[in-house]
Amino acid sequence: MVTVALDVMGSDHGVPEVVNGAASLSTSNRPMNVVLVGDEKQISSALSRCKHDRNYLDICHASESIEMHESPKTALDMKRDCSLLAAARLVKKGEAHALVSAGNTGAVILGTARTFQRLPYIRRAALAAVYPTEKLHGPRGDPFALMLDVGATLHVEAEDLVNFAIMGASYAGIISNNFNPKVALLSNGTEPNKGAPEVVTAHHALKDVPGMEFIGNVEGLDIPKGTADVIVCEGFLGNVSLKMLEGVFEVAGDLFNNAYRQKGDLRVGLNMLAPWLGKLRQITDWQQYGGAPILGLDKVVIKAHGRSKSKAIENALKVAAKSINKKLIDKILGGIKEVYP
Amino acid sequence: MVTVALDVMGSDHGVPEVVNGAASLSTSNRPMNVVLVGDEKQISSALSRCKHDRNYLDICHASESIEMHESPKTALDMKRDCSLLAAARLVKKGEAHALVSAGNTGAVILGTARTFQRLPYIRRAALAAVYPTEKLHGPRGDPFALMLDVGATLHVEAEDLVNFAIMGASYAGIISNNFNPKVALLSNGTEPNKGAPEVVTAHHALKDVPGMEFIGNVEGLDIPKGTADVIVCEGFLGNVSLKMLEGVFEVAGDLFNNAYRQKGDLRVGLNMLAPWLGKLRQITDWQQYGGAPILGLDKVVIKAHGRSKSKAIENALKVAAKSINKKLIDKILGGIKEVYP
Repeated sequence: MVTVALDVMGSDHGVPEVVNGAASLSTSNRPMNVVLVGDEKQISSALSRCKHDRNYLDICHASESIEMHESPKTALDMKRDCSLLAAARLVKKGEAHALVSAGNTGAVILGTARTFQRLPYIRRAALAAVYPTEKLHGPRGDPFALMLDVGATLHVEAEDLVNFAIMGASYAGIISNNFNPKVALLSNGTEPNKGAPEVVTAHHALKDVPGMEFIGNVEGLDIPKGTADVIVCEGFLGNVSLKMLEGVFEVAGDLFNNAYRQKGDLRVGLNMLAPWLGKLRQITDWQQYGGAPILGLDKVVIKAHGRSKSKAIENALKVAAKSINKKLIDKILGGIKEVYP
Repeated sequence: MVTVALDVMGSDHGVPEVVNGAASLSTSNRPMNVVLVGDEKQISSALSRCKHDRNYLDICHASESIEMHESPKTALDMKRDCSLLAAARLVKKGEAHALVSAGNTGAVILGTARTFQRLPYIRRAALAAVYPTEKLHGPRGDPFALMLDVGATLHVEAEDLVNFAIMGASYAGIISNNFNPKVALLSNGTEPNKGAPEVVTAHHALKDVPGMEFIGNVEGLDIPKGTADVIVCEGFLGNVSLKMLEGVFEVAGDLFNNAYRQKGDLRVGLNMLAPWLGKLRQITDWQQYGGAPILGLDKVVIKAHGRSKSKAIENALKVAAKSINKKLIDKILGGIKEVYP
């Protein structure tokens, strides 16, 4: 059975919300082992207030934690016994298979980069996020696509983009049973010579990768449409794009909520649309997508959103277990061997 | 009275659509002089089929035109008598005050860069686009903000970002009567040290620009929300972001259209929302925003969207006239002097 080290500290909703996610999973019909890493008192107190099965839950005390506002580098240098590093050490020692954290993103990226090894030929790890699209993807018709990097890097080289494509394709296979995903580079035009120099170079390299269904460049329009199953870009661009999509959903939510507060036709009409709008809201709810993997390391790391509620934590734990059970790291290594034989 | 040179060739909807925009303006109560530059036969034929006032319209024949799919550099090198360059030469010679084109964006950017001078200290011109936001802007409560660069550059230096901020603030003053616009840098975090190195450097420089209301970094979330009146970024990032927003509106339109085709509650509900949805559709319709200026040259250049219908062309001509009447170039020069005294 898979064991996941869960960093319970530093998320926006506090320790109980994170612990509740693991507790809920422990009493489900598909439990896994979870080591709750953080302040023992807070963890015990949270557990005492929710239904759980201690057979599947361990506690590993860590005396420090990194907060959202802290500088990742400084915090990691100073707080050697923080929950994040304690959880990462459990994974490094083989006492857990994977790491999940909803804490400070920069600290998770830097802390795992310092603790784990990068896979051969991978110069930069990438944060990969699933997001909802108009088109469905893979054999199961999933309403989401994958984008990477969305924030582990800023600007990157062509070689990094090629590696992101390999890693993203492997992850799409694991997570959506989509073993031949359409991979694209994000650019400012679809022609092969369009885009920043590193994108143009990566385009030519990706055309020749055996076994990859590289569909070329896509534009901003194609992100919400879902033209590609996996979109590859530098972290600065991916981060802004993904957060913008989140912003659009928030604005749409605001608009509907304001309209609903009015009386008359607007409210009656919205009530009639309720089931349809509910479905849309569900698709655009990032909580169900279960966190973003950091790809390129020799261990499975899932970064859950800082604003994760217990349901999102539960989903992140499931994604971590799935990545282990379906041998994500081996799949990525296989992809790397195709490109660098 | 302002005279605008209008390149009528190379847009997606053909010559008549562009000519119709100028024709409609010529019979309005606020006409301006427009020189229609392109194939004389096609222009005359289009004019013969629409209401117009020849007192305000001239024709300047150009024997060649650049198509959407052509490489800008090759096309400009080969087609010395294309409508775009002919129109630009009219402006350079002082026979027209401003240039408007709905043709190949890359060709308009490169062709005007080759024909006009860059303003002092400006190393790179920028394409600036207005886009709809949740928040209202300026004293008139305009529902749109400005973003630049959205495609004249790829990656840029800190100095370019500072210049884009100066130019964008000047343009916002002209177009929205917003003389003290909130200016922000687009980044992956709001802290001053967040972002690509050039963004961090530009942040520190912009803090010290006299008279500029620099509100710091904004994130992707803030684009649709409209936290800033002017958002500054490199062209690669701005292009992807803006096209993504366009894509989101298209997807939303598709969703509502599909829902409308169903029978029952969904359709009845949507009918009741029709006035409200119509208002949303109007706000998200880029046609009303009248084109994007290329800023940083010593002449006013407005790039209308390639898919512009006559109404959008008319709006682009009005924006060009407004830029001339309100002395856009002088305003930008004034802003430059504040930074490089």
